[in-house]
Amino acid sequence: MTAEIICVGTELLLGDIVNTNAQFLSRELAELGISVLHQHVIGDNPGRLRELVTQARQRSDLLVFSGGLGPTADDLTKETVAEAFGDTLRFDEEEWQKIVEFFGRTHRTPSENNRKQAMVPVKGHKVPNDHGTAPGAWFEDEQGHAAVLMPGVPREMKAMWAEQVRPALQARQNCTIHSVTLRVLGGESSIASKAAPFFESENPTAAIYCKTGESEIRVTARAATAEEAETACRARIAEFRKVLGDNAYDTDVPGLEYTVVRILREKGLQAATAESCTGGLVAEKLTNVPGASEVFGFGFVTYAEQAKNRLLGVDPALIERCNVVSGPVAVAMARGALKASGADLSIGITGLAGPGGALPGKPVGTVYLAGADARTGRAHLMRLELGGYQERAVIRARAALYALDLLRRMALGLPPDSGVSLGPDDPVPEF
Amino acid sequence: MTAEIICVGTELLLGDIVNTNAQFLSRELAELGISVLHQHVIGDNPGRLRELVTQARQRSDLLVFSGGLGPTADDLTKETVAEAFGDTLRFDEEEWQKIVEFFGRTHRTPSENNRKQAMVPVKGHKVPNDHGTAPGAWFEDEQGHAAVLMPGVPREMKAMWAEQVRPALQARQNCTIHSVTLRVLGGESSIASKAAPFFESENPTAAIYCKTGESEIRVTARAATAEEAETACRARIAEFRKVLGDNAYDTDVPGLEYTVVRILREKGLQAATAESCTGGLVAEKLTNVPGASEVFGFGFVTYAEQAKNRLLGVDPALIERCNVVSGPVAVAMARGALKASGADLSIGITGLAGPGGALPGKPVGTVYLAGADARTGRAHLMRLELGGYQERAVIRARAALYALDLLRRMALGLPPDSGVSLGPDDPVPEF
Repeated sequence: MTAEIICVGTELLLGDIVNTNAQFLSRELAELGISVLHQHVIGDNPGRLRELVTQARQRSDLLVFSGGLGPTADDLTKETVAEAFGDTLRFDEEEWQKIVEFFGRTHRTPSENNRKQAMVPVKGHKVPNDHGTAPGAWFEDEQGHAAVLMPGVPREMKAMWAEQVRPALQARQNCTIHSVTLRVLGGESSIASKAAPFFESENPTAAIYCKTGESEIRVTARAATAEEAETACRARIAEFRKVLGDNAYDTDVPGLEYTVVRILREKGLQAATAESCTGGLVAEKLTNVPGASEVFGFGFVTYAEQAKNRLLGVDPALIERCNVVSGPVAVAMARGALKASGADLSIGITGLAGPGGALPGKPVGTVYLAGADARTGRAHLMRLELGGYQERAVIRARAALYALDLLRRMALGLPPDSGVSLGPDDPVPEF
Repeated sequence: MTAEIICVGTELLLGDIVNTNAQFLSRELAELGISVLHQHVIGDNPGRLRELVTQARQRSDLLVFSGGLGPTADDLTKETVAEAFGDTLRFDEEEWQKIVEFFGRTHRTPSENNRKQAMVPVKGHKVPNDHGTAPGAWFEDEQGHAAVLMPGVPREMKAMWAEQVRPALQARQNCTIHSVTLRVLGGESSIASKAAPFFESENPTAAIYCKTGESEIRVTARAATAEEAETACRARIAEFRKVLGDNAYDTDVPGLEYTVVRILREKGLQAATAESCTGGLVAEKLTNVPGASEVFGFGFVTYAEQAKNRLLGVDPALIERCNVVSGPVAVAMARGALKASGADLSIGITGLAGPGGALPGKPVGTVYLAGADARTGRAHLMRLELGGYQERAVIRARAALYALDLLRRMALGLPPDSGVSLGPDDPVPEF
């Protein structure tokens, strides 16, 4: 099946908003095995809309619309598509009552204009909207071409898609679908080179999405039953994990901090943070996870040298000798954070986020990351070179991701990727 | 002049990425007074591309492309558009040398495929790319219709647009343009109601973009000279400021934290943060501004009650009596942060970011924000009700924005919007 996505809205043509609906629908249609050949954005102009619908209907099986279902006189999408598909509209009393009730709940009265929104297809059918006023519409012509019209408000569109449209299309495609998202530290190319064949597979499919310092692999299986689809997904995820090792850290989570909080909670551990160049980013990420207070109580943003001394007990002579951006200071920060907080695990970060401030042998992007473990007295130190990313915010985001990963590895007893492991009395190397 | 935007790329049709290029170009074209009638996304398919270009060329004056200039065999955008515009391509030795050098700088060698990227229009002209390998192309037919082809990588496209394409279109439109962005705390509707006539004006135009807790007003003036355009912009911005008052906080900055760091630096003041529910977000925002170390040295993320006591000296009896989410605790945190850091100004935040944890009379979204000023011994306390925003991340982001604004107002000596002002010995009210 082939499809075109048509988004109707002047605010899109003016660039007032970014078209996230088109991305959402493209991804969902791809998962259903439906090929999207075109995306269009068009204003509320019946002439141009008619021209587009006529062309699109000839070359594609399915037209997926968002927007243009509003109550004003220039919202003519439903009328225009009805005409192109040889259908007409009728007033639907039931939909009108829903609109009246919806307005009532928010202490408003619908205007005469809103009656337009209660018009539904005669030959086709309406698509219920349980999250807003305007019902959607489904049109079909004699050649089996179909058009589905949904609201433009992303929340309403996504709900209507998930509850009404996607199930109808799944039934047409004669299958059910299950997706699982695996999150993996590292870039697309290193993952693609290790797991290339999985990305060629047609069922389950696998698609990779790049994020800062990590990637998301979305595995989607189609099968006759939901159970089979889920089993196929899980099996492919297990294969990915086998190839990608420790870097594949979790499935279906919004980010690494969620995994870290879950693991700390499972292990009954408390973590603390001592941050200089990341300025509170690691603490902010951890505390954005609901329930983080069970595993995190103390965060130190020691941006000034005095703060490193007063709050973490870092010796000014050490800073003087090694420089504040150095491995020994990072380790002293992490160990100081354990002492000041009573936590089990901690991280210490000091580095150069730029744009200025490069030191001899330490270009912008040099970050020292240390982890300390109160249970063993051991510490781990790594030097990161993040200067290639140039932007201050990206250097900070990548450093924070490494810090979260170090917490994860310490909590799970996994060895870090790089760096040196230090006993309680080992001298801290400068590198 | 009318235009259509055509983005070429399979990754857009698959929903792998969101089409931010279309938004950027739409906004820029609107500012130039060019009406965008259509946006399209299409894959690397010469047949479908030819059909689209033929139709678009008939109805619109200008076709603006991004993407499809890559080196692989299926990148045929340039060839297809050349044909539709009655032009051909030739190999350009100068562009080829630039490509060879570009690869050399990143220690790579171009392949035979890359020679395709050095092909430029014969009748039209190339558009230099100083930020990547592929030059752009400009085609023009006998009826005066034009097509401009730019890379798909947003960074390269935006640079080529700003350096080459926008000036050429400005010259055609016979005017120069100047834009200034005013940032204003508060939502779109309150701004629109105060400044409605300015949004109706045709020159300068004003467009409003909603952000979390604030809005961006982009004022664009067209005039014969750059100086006139700038003067018209500045005059309109001054009118906006008059109507919007203190809430209009700065022009052409990425965010409030930039304004706060600038003001603190100008006033020679040091700030400190004591955060509970925002978990380091205020510190993270401040330290993301280059040069923040001049005005910020100490941040306390006191998520646990013990941390509030040990790091900030908040009396456990006070927490016991008033609850940890209370005005007296927020004030004690802010005052404790001043003492522990030696800073001039501080903020203290404690609240309920949810989703769980509501207290009697304190629903999720209740946040107590205090500011303290070491110069006067005074403090300011406000209670925020952010529960309507539901999402934890949004509650935190809005609370952080209020905190930054409180720092701004304390540094400038402006009265805060709401709340109570407290002398050194005043009892702190519970509300």
